Amino acid sequence: MQSIEVALLGCGVVGQGVVKLLSDESSPLWERLGKKLVIKKVLVRDLKQSRDVTLAEGVLTTDPREILEDDAIKIVIEVMGGIEPAGALLLQALNNGKHIVTANKALLAEAGGPIFEMAAEKKRHVGFEASVAGGIPILKGLSEGLIANRIERVSGIINGTANYILSEMTEHGLEFADVLKAAQEAGYAEADPTFDIDGIDAAHKLAILITLCYGCQVPFKEIYTEGIRNISSLDIDFADSLGYSIKLLAIAQETKQGVEARVHPTMLPHGHLLTQVHGAMNAIHVVGDAVGESMFYGAGAGSLPTASAVVSDVAMIAARLEEPSLLDIAQRLHPADVRPISEWEGEYYLRFAVRDCPGALAQIAGLLGDHDISITSVYQPERDEGAEVPIVVMTHEAREQNMQSALQKIEALETVLAKPVLVRVEKG
Amino acid sequence: MQSIEVALLGCGVVGQGVVKLLSDESSPLWERLGKKLVIKKVLVRDLKQSRDVTLAEGVLTTDPREILEDDAIKIVIEVMGGIEPAGALLLQALNNGKHIVTANKALLAEAGGPIFEMAAEKKRHVGFEASVAGGIPILKGLSEGLIANRIERVSGIINGTANYILSEMTEHGLEFADVLKAAQEAGYAEADPTFDIDGIDAAHKLAILITLCYGCQVPFKEIYTEGIRNISSLDIDFADSLGYSIKLLAIAQETKQGVEARVHPTMLPHGHLLTQVHGAMNAIHVVGDAVGESMFYGAGAGSLPTASAVVSDVAMIAARLEEPSLLDIAQRLHPADVRPISEWEGEYYLRFAVRDCPGALAQIAGLLGDHDISITSVYQPERDEGAEVPIVVMTHEAREQNMQSALQKIEALETVLAKPVLVRVEKG
Repeated sequence: MQSIEVALLGCGVVGQGVVKLLSDESSPLWERLGKKLVIKKVLVRDLKQSRDVTLAEGVLTTDPREILEDDAIKIVIEVMGGIEPAGALLLQALNNGKHIVTANKALLAEAGGPIFEMAAEKKRHVGFEASVAGGIPILKGLSEGLIANRIERVSGIINGTANYILSEMTEHGLEFADVLKAAQEAGYAEADPTFDIDGIDAAHKLAILITLCYGCQVPFKEIYTEGIRNISSLDIDFADSLGYSIKLLAIAQETKQGVEARVHPTMLPHGHLLTQVHGAMNAIHVVGDAVGESMFYGAGAGSLPTASAVVSDVAMIAARLEEPSLLDIAQRLHPADVRPISEWEGEYYLRFAVRDCPGALAQIAGLLGDHDISITSVYQPERDEGAEVPIVVMTHEAREQNMQSALQKIEALETVLAKPVLVRVEKG
Repeated sequence: MQSIEVALLGCGVVGQGVVKLLSDESSPLWERLGKKLVIKKVLVRDLKQSRDVTLAEGVLTTDPREILEDDAIKIVIEVMGGIEPAGALLLQALNNGKHIVTANKALLAEAGGPIFEMAAEKKRHVGFEASVAGGIPILKGLSEGLIANRIERVSGIINGTANYILSEMTEHGLEFADVLKAAQEAGYAEADPTFDIDGIDAAHKLAILITLCYGCQVPFKEIYTEGIRNISSLDIDFADSLGYSIKLLAIAQETKQGVEARVHPTMLPHGHLLTQVHGAMNAIHVVGDAVGESMFYGAGAGSLPTASAVVSDVAMIAARLEEPSLLDIAQRLHPADVRPISEWEGEYYLRFAVRDCPGALAQIAGLLGDHDISITSVYQPERDEGAEVPIVVMTHEAREQNMQSALQKIEALETVLAKPVLVRVEKG
C-alpha cells in the first residue's frame, strides 16, 4: 500500500484527535482509501508538554522548517488555530508545493483570500471541512452534493457553546451568567468566551459557508453579528409561551440587494427542526432550489469529531494528489455585495423593562407606530404601579432601520428602565 | 467552457428533473464546475408521449444503440427504473467505456455486483447518490465525509411513502388503509404500494448503505424486511402514551456475528431526532466512532430533489473523467456475513387482541415467561367481559427467536383473537 507523508502544525485538542485517527492501524480508512497516511512531523511549541497521544521519537519538532522544507511531506495539516503564525505557515507550505488542510475558521474568514489565491496559483488543494460545524460534512455536502442547486438560504446553529448555554437556560430556567459560569468551570466554555457568546465564531463560519454557497467573499466586518448576552430566561419563557424557541443562528441568503449575512439570537417556531438541536450539537439547514429543504446535524466541535473532518480532507487530497482541485475557489471568487442589516424586514419580539404606569405602553406603541411598525400582540403579565415590569411586544413585518430608530427613542423614555431586548423572528 | 455530452436512459419523473437542471443556462452549476453538460440523447419508449420538458429535435430516441455506440457520449444516466433492461443497458454502457449514473436502488441492491465489477474492470465511475434518500447527499457524506469513521450504526427513514402514511395516522388518528387510499388518490402513493409499505424499497436502499458503510454486499433476501400494514392507530396511540413514536426504520450495524440488516416498524423515544421527521421527508442517522452522532435530512424522492443528486454525480464524474474512481467499490467488496434477525435482542411492544376474560393476561404472561421474556409493564385499558379488548405488553430485553416462539404459542391460545402485533423498540 502506498504511503503518503503528512505533517501537523499544532498538537492541541484537534491535533491529538488527528494523531489518534491516523495512528489507528485497524481503521477501515486504509482499505477505503487504498493508501496509508503517515505522520512524519508535528510542530509544537514545547516538546515536553504532556499529551494524550504517543508519537515516535523525532516526530515532534519546534522548527517549522523541518516540515515546510521537507519535500517528502505532501500534505500539511494546520490545527494550531489563530491567524498568525498559522496563515504565514500555510502560505509557505503552499508556496513549497504542499497541499494544506486547516480547521481554522478565523484564519479563513478574516484572511482566507491570499490562501485560496496561492493554492490556485500553485494548483494545490485546500481542505477546510473541519472549519465549519466540526465533524458534519457540510462543506462537501454544499459544494459537491448540492452543486446543482441555487442555495436560497442557509441557516445554522454553528456555535456549540452558545447553543449549549441557550439549551441549559431553556431546560432549567437558568440565567445566562449562571450557565456561562458553570460551563466555564466544567470546561465547556473558554475562559474568554467572547468568540462563542458574542457570535464571532459563528460569523467566521458563516463567512466560509457564504464563500461556498455564493462564490463570494464577504468582508468579515460586514457580517451583522450579535451574541446571546442580552437574552434572559424571561425572554426564553415568553418565547416559549408564544410558540417559539430562541436559538443563535447564522443566516445567509441571496437578495437583490446583495448577500444577507447575519448572526443573532432568533425566535424559531416550535416544530422547526433547528429547535430540536440541543446542547453543544450543531446543525445547518439548507434550502436549495432543486433539493428543497435539507439539514445536516452532528457534533460541531470536540477532538475526534473535528479530526474526523480533518482526516476526511486529508484522505480526499491523498486520493487526488496530482489533480487540480475541483473546488478551485479562488478562480471564481468575487467580492460580495452585502445587504446591510438595516434593510432586513421581518417580525420582531421586543421586551421592554418599564416603570409600571398607565401611560408606558401607550408611549411605546405610539413610537413604534410613528416608525411604521405595527403590533401583533402585547403581553404585560405583571402590574405593580411604580415598580419595574416587563412589557413584551410582537410585531408584524417591519424594517430593521425603522426598528432601530424607534428603539433609540423608546430607550430615551423616562419610563423605560433598560435597553430594550430585540429578537428577530425567523419562520423559514 | 468545455462541453461534456451525456445521455439519459428514461425520461420519467426523475429524468425530466434532470433535463430541467441541465437545461438551466443560468444555473450556478456551470461556473462551479467549469464545464458544461449537454444532453445529446434521451432514450424513451414512446417519442410522442407528452412531457414536461422540451428537448431539441433529434434528442429523443427509442434506439439504445444511438447512446451506447456513440463515443462522444461520456456519461450515461439511467433513470428508467426496474432491473431489466436497465441493468443490461448499464453493463453495455460500461463495456463501451462510458461512466454511468443511476438512481436505481432495486437494480443496485438486487443485481449491483456485476455493475460494480464491470466498472472496476473498465475503470469507469458509477454514481448512485440518487439511489438512496433522493436529494440528500448521504452516500457522499458516508463514503467521503465520514471516511475516517467506523460506522457503528446507521438507521434511517428512507421511504417517504411509509413515513407519510405513519405521519398522517399519527397526526390525524387515522387507520392505515384509509390513509393509503387517500394517498393513492392524491398520487402520493403508487397504485401498487407493495414496495413502499412492505419495506422492500427501504431494504433496497439499506443494502446500498451497507455496501458503503461496511464494504460488503448483503444478499438482498437476507435483509429482514417487515412493513407497516399491521400498524393500527391503536398502536400509535399506545406508543405515544408510552413515550414513543412509531417509524419505519432501516437499520444496519456491525456485530460480532455479522452485519445486522433489518427494516421494520420501530418505536423510537420521543425526543429522538428521527421522530421529528414528518410526512414524506427522509433522514439518515449515523453513529461513527470518531464523529459520534450525526444526521442527514431532506427530501427522499420527487423530481427535482432526486435530479439534484443525479446531477451532482454527473458533475463529479465530469470533473474527474479520466481518473479512476476513489470509491472503487468492486475492488474491496466482500460477501457479507448477515446476522439473522433471530439473534436480535431488544425491548418489544406487543399488542394482543384477546377475548376479555380473567385468565387471558395470565396465560400470555406465562408463555412469555416460559420463553425467558420478562415484562416491564402491561396495559389493559378496557374491560368488557367476553368482548375483544387489547392488551399491551412492554418487555425487557429479549431475544427475537424466543419472542417468535412465544408469539406462536400465544397466537394459538383460544382467548387470543388475532395475530399479535409486535414493534421493536430502538433507543439509539
